[in-house]
Amino acid sequence: MNNPLYKLFESQVGKPMKENAPPFTQWLEPTLKSVTPGQFELEITVRKEMTNPLGLLHGGVQAAILDEVIGMTVASLDKPLPAVSVNLNVDFLGKARVGDIIVAKSNVVRQGRQIINMTGELYNQEGKLIARAMSNMLQIEMKKK
Amino acid sequence: MNNPLYKLFESQVGKPMKENAPPFTQWLEPTLKSVTPGQFELEITVRKEMTNPLGLLHGGVQAAILDEVIGMTVASLDKPLPAVSVNLNVDFLGKARVGDIIVAKSNVVRQGRQIINMTGELYNQEGKLIARAMSNMLQIEMKKK
Amino acid sequence: MNNPLYKLFESQVGKPMKENAPPFTQWLEPTLKSVTPGQFELEITVRKEMTNPLGLLHGGVQAAILDEVIGMTVASLDKPLPAVSVNLNVDFLGKARVGDIIVAKSNVVRQGRQIINMTGELYNQEGKLIARAMSNMLQIEMKKK
Amino acid sequence: MNNPLYKLFESQVGKPMKENAPPFTQWLEPTLKSVTPGQFELEITVRKEMTNPLGLLHGGVQAAILDEVIGMTVASLDKPLPAVSVNLNVDFLGKARVGDIIVAKSNVVRQGRQIINMTGELYNQEGKLIARAMSNMLQIEMKKK
Repeated sequence: MNNPLYKLFESQVGKPMKENAPPFTQWLEPTLKSVTPGQFELEITVRKEMTNPLGLLHGGVQAAILDEVIGMTVASLDKPLPAVSVNLNVDFLGKARVGDIIVAKSNVVRQGRQIINMTGELYNQEGKLIARAMSNMLQIEMKKK
Repeated sequence: MNNPLYKLFESQVGKPMKENAPPFTQWLEPTLKSVTPGQFELEITVRKEMTNPLGLLHGGVQAAILDEVIGMTVASLDKPLPAVSVNLNVDFLGKARVGDIIVAKSNVVRQGRQIINMTGELYNQEGKLIARAMSNMLQIEMKKK
Repeated sequence: MNNPLYKLFESQVGKPMKENAPPFTQWLEPTLKSVTPGQFELEITVRKEMTNPLGLLHGGVQAAILDEVIGMTVASLDKPLPAVSVNLNVDFLGKARVGDIIVAKSNVVRQGRQIINMTGELYNQEGKLIARAMSNMLQIEMKKK
Repeated sequence: MNNPLYKLFESQVGKPMKENAPPFTQWLEPTLKSVTPGQFELEITVRKEMTNPLGLLHGGVQAAILDEVIGMTVASLDKPLPAVSVNLNVDFLGKARVGDIIVAKSNVVRQGRQIINMTGELYNQEGKLIARAMSNMLQIEMKKK
């Protein structure tokens, strides 16, 4: 991968992403577990403020984590243009609790000229799949040439 | 509506949801703008920690807000059983900036015996639609009788 | 609308689409009920070969009809490039029976430079919503200039 | 598997599904390629009437095939109640032509007490992934006991 962002992410494996990370990434406080081209793995500790009235990881935060890991992976691909999310589809399958360390994985399914099709998965501390996502990202054309 | 949660939400219209709200709701700091049966409207101020590297409201937080407003609306419906999210599909259509007051709306499309089908929409400060969602919620059967 | 396809569709309102229609459109045998820019309405009679083991309109055929009405609407928009489907999300809400005349509606939610965001709805003969869809269509860039 | 439908499907591997199949299944004319619990594989020959104006397999028919293979797989699972589709999300990734023999695969991701979460994939004759789907199926509770 020639994308400098890829090399940056690679250099941060094992370290919590804090000070220099983008604002919402800081809030999630992920640790990069593994980085390979088109496949990222994050670990995130479920904090109380991420939970719903039942003390479980909020579905909305699950969706946000999936969007985040997918976005990171796409941002670090070799490609000529920046990419934005077209859509995110999430299926909710299980739960995680405060204090759990969950794992978020992403995967490039197809990198086309305009659309990059992605998969994301969320696992709880017991290794059970708790959510999965399909997402399409679009490489944005510049207005002028 | 006979659901006590509905009456509670109704009594909070116009007041920011803080201390007594569930943890992630507190983080979002929404203000209920209007509450009618099956239709909620929230206002949320975009804070820096909700943003991506471009200073725009993170797509994941957009998804989380949509999940939140949909969840609140379903929780306050007249129905015999609690409901959980089966899925959330989000289409991203525009952007919001730090400091913007955005509006999140939800709507019951069909309240079936088991599945409640929902719509959610997110508008930026200029009133432009920036994201929309379809979501299915499931009324959970109790295991034993 | 300056798109010649729009004018062609407009001229066919009220007539069943048969001989000159594309192959799968012929199989669906739709009648254009109304055509306005960015909004189409089709009527389709549910034939036996469109049904599942219960004698109800097959969910897959519902999805196909939604894709068809959305595709027609997008094809007839004023835009410089042809468009293809990126994704189709369908929520199933009700049923239709053999012999029923169902109505399929589509609507442009946002026509962007690259992505066109669409809604589709399916109503049974009693006017009840039986399925709804969100879909993103992509205007394809030409490879060479 | 104790579900008699499973045994019926198993006995039909390698034979085209015609006369005794449900109406829309007959129209698709699939051949069961392999049947294992929770995983089905179909082969379908793309006929002209399944195509769009470009002579390619219509996206709507792709969605219909995915719904069909997912539905067959769920119908043949060991479970106390019949199941219906809640939703179907399809991402379109490639193309197939008239005469191509395409392969449709399905997979149970999670069989819960009420919701069965499914994946489906469509491959063209060159073995390239042309569409993939996530779908939730609901086991319907009987009204009376």
